[in-house]
Amino acid sequence: MDLAALGTLFFLQVTVILAVARITGYLAQRYLMQPRVVGEMIAGVLLGPSLFGAFSPDMQAALFPADTRPILYVIAQMGVGLYMFIVGLGFDRKDFAVNAKGAAIVSVAGMAAPFLAAVLLVPWLLQQGGLFGEGIDALQATLFLGAAIAITAFPMLARIIHERGITGTTEGTIALSAGAIGDAGAWVLVAIVLATLNNNMTNAGIAVGGGLAFAAFMIFLGPRFFAYLGRRAENKGVDNGLIGIALILYMLSAFFMDAIGIHAVFGGFLLGTAMPKGKLSEGLKQALEPVTVVLLLPFFFTYSGLHTDLRVAGGGPLLWVALVILLASVLAKGGASYLAARWVGQSNRSALGIGTLMNARGLMELIIINIGLQSGVIEPSLFSILVLMAIVTTLMASPLFELSRRIR
Amino acid sequence: MDLAALGTLFFLQVTVILAVARITGYLAQRYLMQPRVVGEMIAGVLLGPSLFGAFSPDMQAALFPADTRPILYVIAQMGVGLYMFIVGLGFDRKDFAVNAKGAAIVSVAGMAAPFLAAVLLVPWLLQQGGLFGEGIDALQATLFLGAAIAITAFPMLARIIHERGITGTTEGTIALSAGAIGDAGAWVLVAIVLATLNNNMTNAGIAVGGGLAFAAFMIFLGPRFFAYLGRRAENKGVDNGLIGIALILYMLSAFFMDAIGIHAVFGGFLLGTAMPKGKLSEGLKQALEPVTVVLLLPFFFTYSGLHTDLRVAGGGPLLWVALVILLASVLAKGGASYLAARWVGQSNRSALGIGTLMNARGLMELIIINIGLQSGVIEPSLFSILVLMAIVTTLMASPLFELSRRIR
Repeated sequence: MDLAALGTLFFLQVTVILAVARITGYLAQRYLMQPRVVGEMIAGVLLGPSLFGAFSPDMQAALFPADTRPILYVIAQMGVGLYMFIVGLGFDRKDFAVNAKGAAIVSVAGMAAPFLAAVLLVPWLLQQGGLFGEGIDALQATLFLGAAIAITAFPMLARIIHERGITGTTEGTIALSAGAIGDAGAWVLVAIVLATLNNNMTNAGIAVGGGLAFAAFMIFLGPRFFAYLGRRAENKGVDNGLIGIALILYMLSAFFMDAIGIHAVFGGFLLGTAMPKGKLSEGLKQALEPVTVVLLLPFFFTYSGLHTDLRVAGGGPLLWVALVILLASVLAKGGASYLAARWVGQSNRSALGIGTLMNARGLMELIIINIGLQSGVIEPSLFSILVLMAIVTTLMASPLFELSRRIR
Repeated sequence: MDLAALGTLFFLQVTVILAVARITGYLAQRYLMQPRVVGEMIAGVLLGPSLFGAFSPDMQAALFPADTRPILYVIAQMGVGLYMFIVGLGFDRKDFAVNAKGAAIVSVAGMAAPFLAAVLLVPWLLQQGGLFGEGIDALQATLFLGAAIAITAFPMLARIIHERGITGTTEGTIALSAGAIGDAGAWVLVAIVLATLNNNMTNAGIAVGGGLAFAAFMIFLGPRFFAYLGRRAENKGVDNGLIGIALILYMLSAFFMDAIGIHAVFGGFLLGTAMPKGKLSEGLKQALEPVTVVLLLPFFFTYSGLHTDLRVAGGGPLLWVALVILLASVLAKGGASYLAARWVGQSNRSALGIGTLMNARGLMELIIINIGLQSGVIEPSLFSILVLMAIVTTLMASPLFELSRRIR
């Protein structure tokens, strides 16, 4: 395809991607009382083989030909990494400050139960065949599935807690801390799985060593290193100069993490956490969030949706696999968090709220499983099943949380 | 190249593109008293065959391999179209309100002289050979070169006038009106050249008819059509919903103009002018400008720079062509505007200010000549010469304007 034709097709693709994302997002919000992101996740699936491709394979192939996949991929990567950078900007160290015994126990339960579920499920799943990539051993499969079950839609959780005005309450603190700790843990495990994928020991060493060095730098030296940027923002506001520096640091972090064999999103997220909070993080968020959320993330949903074929879970033995994974995920994350919250003395209302929020996986799940698919940890069949799990557990959250509010 | 490697390389490319743009932009601003955009234009040239490619062809080819050109191209197109949309948002109908005889005369002079220069130059340039594309006739060459000489960096001009606080003065009004009218005229001519490029009469008809219909819609019906968006913005502010709708309209306009054979930037610009001014245009600008200017435009400068080889103008007959075009451009646009301003009674100071501002071509010139190169109107040699002309006339503006301020 010549460049002019490619450019023309690209504008048509983006028109369709954005229009479908806006419409499903609007419908989800208006008629299902769901956060917009659920609708946009579904939009991606609709544009893939599950609906558009099943309905008209020719039109789908004409709108998303193979030539354009690299472009969608690259923009999706940049967008999702920027989104994780923005999530990192909102990830305050004090979210980790476990100021109640309760938070620690809920965190542990919300990580231990998913891994127990993974330990129990993986032998059975490996027996089914065709779910995990070739050469993936039981340990790697368990770590990855555990992380996929344990992950929480932290940004969504933080927003709901903020919107409901329960930020200072025990319920809010427990959910926020447990979500943050659980997500950090899940990401570490995914990074370990990625590092061990290299059969080559030198490459694995580079991945582990480089990843640890990067994380250590961002956690211990980063805040001091970037303090100057924070001071500049406090004095002069966030201008294009600061935005440019932040974007260069982001691109460099994403490149470094990709190059050592981890993943760009870790670079973005860790950099975001290391940025000084206050005017800088607020200003960067304001400058980057609209384009990232409205324009770039739908590329990620679409790229992800183009690889999702929900028809694989539509019948036969894979339907059982899908139902078992869904049930295990809800019980191991939502159920365990609920029980742990009850155990530390939370009311039924508060414990149900915590369990519900911890159980919503949203975009974070999509990010993890896209990494798994790209790196060959999971096959398209398990990928599609986990997309379904991500959508269902995210859809459950709003009605269940509403329900919990009616408990006195 | 597999997708993972492509993604990794992409992050490295963006790191280099943004870092070089920031550094040259900073140096231009700090040491040459130039607007940042001049530095970023130069950054693109430095990354191309003129410097980086001349210095180390292997490294340049490794950083910008052929596989990645389509990605750079598509992001550059999206970015420059969005930039033109933002320019359109700041393009108020009252800029066209020629409330002084002076503005009309300066406008006419600033368009007539460039076309006279093109009429005189084109026969000589066609004799040189290898400057215009094959099959381009003298009329097309004249219209295109006239537009390339007549174009003004309108956004830069508007910013300088605003920053200097001369918005309400005769000098400010004349420069603003003459710049707006001149740019609109130049774009119309480029659109005509593009429409006539189709040897196929049906396609030419589609281009002319579709372009006129689109322009008429945006000029006469657009403002009424989009008034609802403006009211929503006035009442509820500019949220992600409105940003999403604006982006969909932009992508659709860009697609339509590309598809009929004009160019995406016209779609963006005309849509921007049709958007209600006030909270909506301000909010959209605030949401889209940082990412467009800091992240996306450097892609355009780089893509443009990768096709610019200043060495072609470094010696032999092309050096003369470059010098003659540069001189003719300065005299025909800057000189004619100065004389016209003097003729309608402006002081020497004010006339020199007007002439200088009209003569700066900046990014607008790069956009026009990139369209010319892509569509085969001009060859890489003339493209490189016009890049040089764009940089030099933009570099001249700030010191000359400073000089004009010292005239009493």
